[in-house]
Amino acid sequence: MNWPDWISAVKWDRDGLVPVIAQERSSNDVLMFAYMNREALAKTAELQRAVYWSRSRQRLWVKGEASGHAQQVHEIRLDCDNDVVLLKVTQLGHDPADPSIACHTGRHSCFFQKLEGDAWQSVEPVLLDPQRIYK
Amino acid sequence: MNWPDWISAVKWDRDGLVPVIAQERSSNDVLMFAYMNREALAKTAELQRAVYWSRSRQRLWVKGEASGHAQQVHEIRLDCDNDVVLLKVTQLGHDPADPSIACHTGRHSCFFQKLEGDAWQSVEPVLLDPQRIYK
Repeated sequence: MNWPDWISAVKWDRDGLVPVIAQERSSNDVLMFAYMNREALAKTAELQRAVYWSRSRQRLWVKGEASGHAQQVHEIRLDCDNDVVLLKVTQLGHDPADPSIACHTGRHSCFFQKLEGDAWQSVEPVLLDPQRIYK
Repeated sequence: MNWPDWISAVKWDRDGLVPVIAQERSSNDVLMFAYMNREALAKTAELQRAVYWSRSRQRLWVKGEASGHAQQVHEIRLDCDNDVVLLKVTQLGHDPADPSIACHTGRHSCFFQKLEGDAWQSVEPVLLDPQRIYK
């Protein structure tokens, strides 16, 4: 397949992937981190919805396909070395009243473990029981 | 070497590295992305200064050692899969009056290229000429 120049401008790693940071536009919070391949990045730009590459399942993963927690994409950014992507997103939920939940644990952000002394402590609340997310 | 439990709790990749996002504490801006090995993470926690692993130079890289743009570390966070680290930092400069410059191009953040239509556009200003940073 012939990819457009802007896709080819990304420095894809040896697995054909690029690391991706998803940041919430309203709060600037870092929500999660994942990977994309060329197809995932192309689809993300096309749909304005975050589409990642699941390394564990080895397939495209439309964020929210199982959880309902899709991500509306407002901006796609690339770093100075062309090898990391940053998305500015709105974290969507099951319904408009849902709090912003990006993590499969039911938390706002995946980065809820904080180093305190010499131990990782969970410091962010679970907003929704994962059993209610993945029905 | 016997690493402490909190270091061993990180899921290190096949190269013994973990991806790291550096986020500015005051603004929540994502400044940069890099990697750490076990020693870099241990030193970061010990010094409360960001120490990365330079993949290109294959050695520890104390952020700011060449540029003067060191990073004071306030929090070290780990994601839900234990395989990505997030630092909350204050970006330091040559002197207290320096603007916050994390990128080697002299910009605030490394993520200054934005996808507009089908092209990456530089949308953030150069705050300091790199020739003045790397003297």
